[in-house]
Amino acid sequence: MKMNDYIELIDKKLEEFIPVQYPDEIFESMKYTVLLPGKRLRPAMCLEACRIFGGNIEHALPTACAVEMIHAQSLIHDDLPCMDNDDFRRGKPTNHKVFGEAIAVLAGDALLTFAPQLIIEKSEISIEKKLRVVEEFVKMSGAYGLIAGQVVDIKSEKKSLNEISDPEKTLEYIQTNKTAVLFKLALRTGAIIAGASDKQIGEITEFGQNLGVAFQIADDILDEISTFEEMGKSSGKDKNAQKLTSISLYGLENAKCKVSCILENCYDTIENYGIKSEVLNEIILGIKKRVGI
Amino acid sequence: MKMNDYIELIDKKLEEFIPVQYPDEIFESMKYTVLLPGKRLRPAMCLEACRIFGGNIEHALPTACAVEMIHAQSLIHDDLPCMDNDDFRRGKPTNHKVFGEAIAVLAGDALLTFAPQLIIEKSEISIEKKLRVVEEFVKMSGAYGLIAGQVVDIKSEKKSLNEISDPEKTLEYIQTNKTAVLFKLALRTGAIIAGASDKQIGEITEFGQNLGVAFQIADDILDEISTFEEMGKSSGKDKNAQKLTSISLYGLENAKCKVSCILENCYDTIENYGIKSEVLNEIILGIKKRVGI
Repeated sequence: MKMNDYIELIDKKLEEFIPVQYPDEIFESMKYTVLLPGKRLRPAMCLEACRIFGGNIEHALPTACAVEMIHAQSLIHDDLPCMDNDDFRRGKPTNHKVFGEAIAVLAGDALLTFAPQLIIEKSEISIEKKLRVVEEFVKMSGAYGLIAGQVVDIKSEKKSLNEISDPEKTLEYIQTNKTAVLFKLALRTGAIIAGASDKQIGEITEFGQNLGVAFQIADDILDEISTFEEMGKSSGKDKNAQKLTSISLYGLENAKCKVSCILENCYDTIENYGIKSEVLNEIILGIKKRVGI
Repeated sequence: MKMNDYIELIDKKLEEFIPVQYPDEIFESMKYTVLLPGKRLRPAMCLEACRIFGGNIEHALPTACAVEMIHAQSLIHDDLPCMDNDDFRRGKPTNHKVFGEAIAVLAGDALLTFAPQLIIEKSEISIEKKLRVVEEFVKMSGAYGLIAGQVVDIKSEKKSLNEISDPEKTLEYIQTNKTAVLFKLALRTGAIIAGASDKQIGEITEFGQNLGVAFQIADDILDEISTFEEMGKSSGKDKNAQKLTSISLYGLENAKCKVSCILENCYDTIENYGIKSEVLNEIILGIKKRVGI
């Protein structure tokens, strides 16, 4: 399968997996952000990891969609007025702008619990694998992963570099926990579903860590150089919020070099470990293109 | 064990189960609300259900604490300015008043994922039981339970009774999903851990549904008749927010009758099903005392 086939399949399943019932508003709100047109990188990586290690991608579909739901959850809560206060996301009004803040908070909460529910109810995999996949989800999307990243991100705002102790390590922490964590979650759970060995899971995790960091640096670069139309959301926001990013720490040109260098590492990783994947190559190329390197 | 023994045990475990690590603020915020002194009704019910059906309460401790964490999560998010906008809870400033709104939103999120993590990592029960207990959690704390109740509660505010279609059914929906759901979650998961039969789980669920509704009506009554000192939170708020409650629908005296009647049902249920439990009797009596019936 190619990236576009995955996107089509994922979009169809995302629509199918969230049925709207009473009270409709909460399900409509969940669907609204989950179904915003997106690149579907994370769910595609989950399916591709499953394929790479010899699994049946049908078995990984609920998990792949669940990763996208966790991603949507983090976007809904990050966009709230008390966090990044963003009015647009993927070119559309953010969740709280459409449904109000109360429903947006609750839709995020609902997605956090709906993701593991989907895996448990809809995956045709063994109980052992289900529990392992759900454990990865709750750990990586919580205070030991995604949320820790968001906390450190917020706490590093509105500070000059010399007010942050070890800004380089702090930035790496944010990139790892805010972004790479969902790349790793997607790849690891896809691999677990396929029955990959611990060694293979370790290798794909290493790849996901690097790809996630490269993706985040590319995102920082785009925030610096793009227009609203290109981003589908407000640009230049990192600078206005005095966020700790690879741009504020290294400058634009060095950040570009870093992306390029880390992506070379990604190529090396998959070559060294004998991973054959058009889709992962496509994703690497996509990041390069976005920042023009 | 008596109620006070359970409370002591639960308080000790709640403290132990949330270790503070980097980034400290999120764990401090989670702990703050979870550890506010409380009646620990829900975790005690979980342990007691486990005991009633012949289980080892040690096996249910992580699950019992996880129920209290979900309860704390719902309090943190319900108290936010965009929801009920409460400044006090259990006599102390609410989470967002101490840690700010952003951290309060994230602490709620973190508790939602930490609860199942705790069950998976710390329970000495079979994989099958773990997955069943986690499934109960994610379903009952999400859009098919607790969150649905909160949504309908919010949507019924600031409306006169004739603006709500079928206010009686709507109120029952709120009571069931906002309150009884966590009573049922606690009792059901305790029973599952003990290895209770489906019939026994059904019976304890029936009891939890009734007890939860009685508890919520009692809470509505207290909001109407108590002072801030007695409640540990602002009173008279339901009326000010024009909430749909048993008081707005039935009036104070009828609401008292309802509590009394439902609690008689609770006694009948445990007697009919041959459930012997001092603790459940203590909880029923506690509700009666609170509203002076």
